[in-house]
Amino acid sequence: MSHKKISINGEIFSEEDAKISVFDRGFLYGDSVYEVTMARDGIPFEIDKHLDRLYQSAMKLDLLISQSRSEFYLAIKNLLEKFPVDSAYLRIIVTRGEGEISLDPKSAGANNVILIAQELPAYPKEWYKNGVHLIVAERLRNQASSLDPNVKSGNYLNSVMAHSEAKKLGAYDAVMLNQEGKVTESSNSNIWVVKEGILITPPLRSGLLEGLTRKGVMSLAKKHKLPFEERELTVEELYAVDECFLTSTTKRLVPVTSIDGTTFGHGKPGPITKQLMQWDKRACESEWERMKMLWNAEFRGKN
Amino acid sequence: MSHKKISINGEIFSEEDAKISVFDRGFLYGDSVYEVTMARDGIPFEIDKHLDRLYQSAMKLDLLISQSRSEFYLAIKNLLEKFPVDSAYLRIIVTRGEGEISLDPKSAGANNVILIAQELPAYPKEWYKNGVHLIVAERLRNQASSLDPNVKSGNYLNSVMAHSEAKKLGAYDAVMLNQEGKVTESSNSNIWVVKEGILITPPLRSGLLEGLTRKGVMSLAKKHKLPFEERELTVEELYAVDECFLTSTTKRLVPVTSIDGTTFGHGKPGPITKQLMQWDKRACESEWERMKMLWNAEFRGKN
Repeated sequence: MSHKKISINGEIFSEEDAKISVFDRGFLYGDSVYEVTMARDGIPFEIDKHLDRLYQSAMKLDLLISQSRSEFYLAIKNLLEKFPVDSAYLRIIVTRGEGEISLDPKSAGANNVILIAQELPAYPKEWYKNGVHLIVAERLRNQASSLDPNVKSGNYLNSVMAHSEAKKLGAYDAVMLNQEGKVTESSNSNIWVVKEGILITPPLRSGLLEGLTRKGVMSLAKKHKLPFEERELTVEELYAVDECFLTSTTKRLVPVTSIDGTTFGHGKPGPITKQLMQWDKRACESEWERMKMLWNAEFRGKN
Repeated sequence: MSHKKISINGEIFSEEDAKISVFDRGFLYGDSVYEVTMARDGIPFEIDKHLDRLYQSAMKLDLLISQSRSEFYLAIKNLLEKFPVDSAYLRIIVTRGEGEISLDPKSAGANNVILIAQELPAYPKEWYKNGVHLIVAERLRNQASSLDPNVKSGNYLNSVMAHSEAKKLGAYDAVMLNQEGKVTESSNSNIWVVKEGILITPPLRSGLLEGLTRKGVMSLAKKHKLPFEERELTVEELYAVDECFLTSTTKRLVPVTSIDGTTFGHGKPGPITKQLMQWDKRACESEWERMKMLWNAEFRGKN
């Protein structure tokens, strides 16, 4: 078990002691929002953008976060100082708080803020060198009219069940379709394909999370003038692509070489995928520089 | 704040000390199942049926509950003995347990069992005498293909958001429609209407929880030869009913006298609703007798 540090409302705990009330609505109803990022030498990656999205998710659930951006920055800084590792995984959870058991959100008191830091695992080189295998899940993605996939909330059973289908079949992850049978994303990453030289990803209206790495890849495509389309994708199209990859904040671009047993591009990551992986690596380095500046500006003279 | 006692894996805690790990999947993902019942003089109501449904909900999520029925009975008995009130509210929560942060359910260890006992409030007499007001929520019910409403899980944001719409408008609760615009249930109760002497409730295929009180009312209708239909209901039909009521385990039958401002039956609970409320009261008394026998048989000679 990896070494972990947890901040609950600013107080730091070990893994064993990091506990929350059973009356917290995050526990009772999954009534919470969250973000995941990584940190290097105590500096969190794209933290301003993750906090933007955290506040947006909360707003969509009428969950008023009483903590300011600076308070989050300070709590994160304090936690990461107590957890000196080269590369950390950082999870930020905000719940609607504790109160009487009642569906009414008004029954909650102040929201709780939980930060979890643990070592960021070195993901298998194999994934990046040879690609991973996906399945298409039978479980359909939540509809936005019921539970918007573009809200990162503590209601994650839809993804858990789809991911579990993949694990049972020995696959890396599962592609999820919407009620119209169109591709949305995988259980916790955005999906991309390449067909005849054109980079394609499903649009937000298909029902998916607007990933920050998804935005990053879009910028790269624009910058390097790569032909790019944001459009609906059917399963049949998915089986017939030349290349495929997933994007997420901590794992970045993960090449996919087969879906439901159908292999693409001779079973190796394709040239456009590999090119994007390289560009992303470079973009991350300049992002870390921006983060260092942001962090230094935030805490200059505050120590 | 009411007085409460909590059992976590058999150990009894006060409200302040009842805490769960932030690594519990119930907290991280809402990866849990639950039931709510009431207890009188230390005896839980319809507990065998609630445990049946708890195991069923868990099975639908591939959540293996390692505790036996007798273990639940014993834990409930021990908790209720420490909480001697006439009428208790009892919530039973089983989570998939704690482990490394990963969507994969296999990353969890043993499941956690949390029992919450608190005083059952005396619900306002007004509700039963004059009826309550509902709205129809804009938020649609989860689709069974994404997250089955007939699984009582810790993913409850869909209901929280619909209920919140009602509260903002000063209504008692919200009726939820499915993606086809058909009536399903309210945010946490089944719904019934009476039209031209016929008792009607939506079928399971509309997407709703198979409530135990719903089953009870069906038995009463059968026993007393009340004309009864289980069929799809449109919103237009809902606005044009003669009577309406909700059913749930702790609140029993709650008459509804208006929906979205449309009043039924001169704004008073209708005759069939009142008749069913009486019959249910009697049926509950004989159910308590059955429970006393079950409880005595379970614990005979075990003290």
